[in-house]
Amino acid sequence: MTEIFGELDHPARLLMGPGPINVHPRVLRAMSVQLLGQFDPEFTTYMNQTMALYRQVFDTANHWTFLIDGTSRAAIEAALVSVLAPGDDVVILNAGRFGLLLSEIADRCGARLHLVEGAWGTVIDPNRVEEVVKHVRPRLVACVHGDTSTTMAQPIAALGEICRRYDALLYVDATATLSGMAAPADAWGADIVTAGLQKCLGGPSGSAPITISDRGAEHIFSRRHVERGLAVTSDAGAGRRIGSNYFDLAMVMDYWSERRLNHHTESAPMLFAARECARVVLEQGLQARFADHALAGKAVTAAAQAMGLEVFGDLSHKMTNVTAIHIPRGVDGDRVRARMCTDFEIEIGTAFGQLAGKVWRIGAMGVNARKHAVLTTFAALEAVLRGEGYSFTAGAGVDAALAVYQEDAA
Amino acid sequence: MTEIFGELDHPARLLMGPGPINVHPRVLRAMSVQLLGQFDPEFTTYMNQTMALYRQVFDTANHWTFLIDGTSRAAIEAALVSVLAPGDDVVILNAGRFGLLLSEIADRCGARLHLVEGAWGTVIDPNRVEEVVKHVRPRLVACVHGDTSTTMAQPIAALGEICRRYDALLYVDATATLSGMAAPADAWGADIVTAGLQKCLGGPSGSAPITISDRGAEHIFSRRHVERGLAVTSDAGAGRRIGSNYFDLAMVMDYWSERRLNHHTESAPMLFAARECARVVLEQGLQARFADHALAGKAVTAAAQAMGLEVFGDLSHKMTNVTAIHIPRGVDGDRVRARMCTDFEIEIGTAFGQLAGKVWRIGAMGVNARKHAVLTTFAALEAVLRGEGYSFTAGAGVDAALAVYQEDAA
Repeated sequence: MTEIFGELDHPARLLMGPGPINVHPRVLRAMSVQLLGQFDPEFTTYMNQTMALYRQVFDTANHWTFLIDGTSRAAIEAALVSVLAPGDDVVILNAGRFGLLLSEIADRCGARLHLVEGAWGTVIDPNRVEEVVKHVRPRLVACVHGDTSTTMAQPIAALGEICRRYDALLYVDATATLSGMAAPADAWGADIVTAGLQKCLGGPSGSAPITISDRGAEHIFSRRHVERGLAVTSDAGAGRRIGSNYFDLAMVMDYWSERRLNHHTESAPMLFAARECARVVLEQGLQARFADHALAGKAVTAAAQAMGLEVFGDLSHKMTNVTAIHIPRGVDGDRVRARMCTDFEIEIGTAFGQLAGKVWRIGAMGVNARKHAVLTTFAALEAVLRGEGYSFTAGAGVDAALAVYQEDAA
Repeated sequence: MTEIFGELDHPARLLMGPGPINVHPRVLRAMSVQLLGQFDPEFTTYMNQTMALYRQVFDTANHWTFLIDGTSRAAIEAALVSVLAPGDDVVILNAGRFGLLLSEIADRCGARLHLVEGAWGTVIDPNRVEEVVKHVRPRLVACVHGDTSTTMAQPIAALGEICRRYDALLYVDATATLSGMAAPADAWGADIVTAGLQKCLGGPSGSAPITISDRGAEHIFSRRHVERGLAVTSDAGAGRRIGSNYFDLAMVMDYWSERRLNHHTESAPMLFAARECARVVLEQGLQARFADHALAGKAVTAAAQAMGLEVFGDLSHKMTNVTAIHIPRGVDGDRVRARMCTDFEIEIGTAFGQLAGKVWRIGAMGVNARKHAVLTTFAALEAVLRGEGYSFTAGAGVDAALAVYQEDAA
């Protein structure tokens, strides 16, 4: 018996978690545009434009700046598997769930892991990284810029210097920060930076921007092995073949090059979405966008503190776009999130691992790094917490957030 | 200097190549719907509905029927890397570019390859496969159902029987046929079947449906290793860990299960697209849809032959939805494609490998498996070939195609 269910018809939620967040209306419209064949000159022009747009978003001169057809995790794996051959040494900064993810993926690449560990809610001292790098002389140093599991933003520039000094490549996962906080690939001295659309870029999950330095690309191309059936002449690099086909960046770069060597079939709606995300961001300007996210983060922090709630982690290194708030004693964190959703159609985030059940995570990013979204969220949170018997001065949260915005406008 | 380019604004092409093809308008609209958080009950309900819809599309009772967040090639790699550990034996049917792709991917999994080769334009005799399977006793037999590079549709059911007899798993790549030709996972005895949206399903590239039998899932789960930071208790399988994180089907299935273990962030627009593709297909009914594709393929073949053009390959095993036509002597195939595009806004396909420059490939699938699309394509092709000095009876192609449709309507 055929069962086809109904049309898409769901509540309009305000997504104030750590991502995904609401998609900018222009990006939604871009995805509904009829597509083109993947080698159509009109389409390859869009591909080239997208490369140019993301060079600006990543603040880089890197030629190799393009998209991975998958979620942000796909780009992380593409970066790691294309650089790391079995037995290669990699130094990984691990102070949160997404640092752990890097180690998990690098481990599956067969790399030898050297972890520099930090407590959740802190960042890692670059001097500690240098000690390890000096000793190990790794192929790659890998770290997360903004780890949403802990809300910490790791300082990166010092790592770039260390990597240059010891001739290591530097990979940075900027999924949760790109276009929300400064993430300048070149100024960092990063060789590969990856992201996703579903955080500060204000798009959906499913396409992952990546940028690669010339020296990063040189290493990856040294491992190039063109697919049988495509290679006209012998085109194999000297290096060890990359362990994945889909994530073989040498082949993906050939596809994004003027050679247009067939690889996957680029997802046109996701390319259209990524292109429009970048256009929205660059029309506003990166600096203005960073300021919006900083202001929203400041307002969220002020509102929480004014309600007597404790903000998690080292505030001097907190990401601007995500804030973790301790669930007060005696309050059922899941019930609060459920009531936020059922009574106000607002989603706030839960937490992973050692923070599960201990904090909520409130994101204000992309199209939601705005005054009304922050104020509405705290108006709702106040009502729900009152209902749960948590004691605080009614109105204090909203007023504190509003004051942050008023001060900024003054 | 900021360069943001213009809005998406490109010609409306009729895409009559081997895919991607035009997206059904309902699917385009579905992608422009605002999204939800990935663990929102409204969203997980959509995920469950999508599983139920694709069970019908794959004509299977398999519980494990879901989506891979990537293009069709991503699902192929997910299937192969999740089944094959280094050193495992795999028998691969190779009679086209996409058979070669299976061997390329399986090779990167570290599997031992045993290829059963066939000439392009033919299918492979199952008896030849049985001889190899009997000798090798492989973990997996892998083949492509419809290989668009050759337009051949490999008979699968006999392979299912062989795999049962010798206790091998059977993987089938049905990217180019699902919902256009019968591709019944259970009747085939296939353990894993994967597809993409951008062919007969009438959607965009970027999401890849997959179905897995219980015995396939059992093998994959035996290799389960839950991510550190997610595993509450020790949850590792006895088998060797899967070589990819993103493509670890054990983790992806945990995400699609009621456990909802966090893995990637499902792309909501691509899920909405996949769901709507299935709804369109099932509303029409699979049999009616197969008939549409068969009729369109018959009309394309008849039109080409009436123009004195030779259709490539073993016609008794030709896919219904893609037809390869020999480029006549003295005609510049690329110029014909270019004029089809610039004068008529119609895209027809080129070819790969040994067929490059020798055939055009005309697809009539998904929303384009329709009379007007076929007739318009041949009206244009006639005009262009006249312009190129190819000699044939004017109107013969269009009339032959129309006659096929009229005969069917009679």
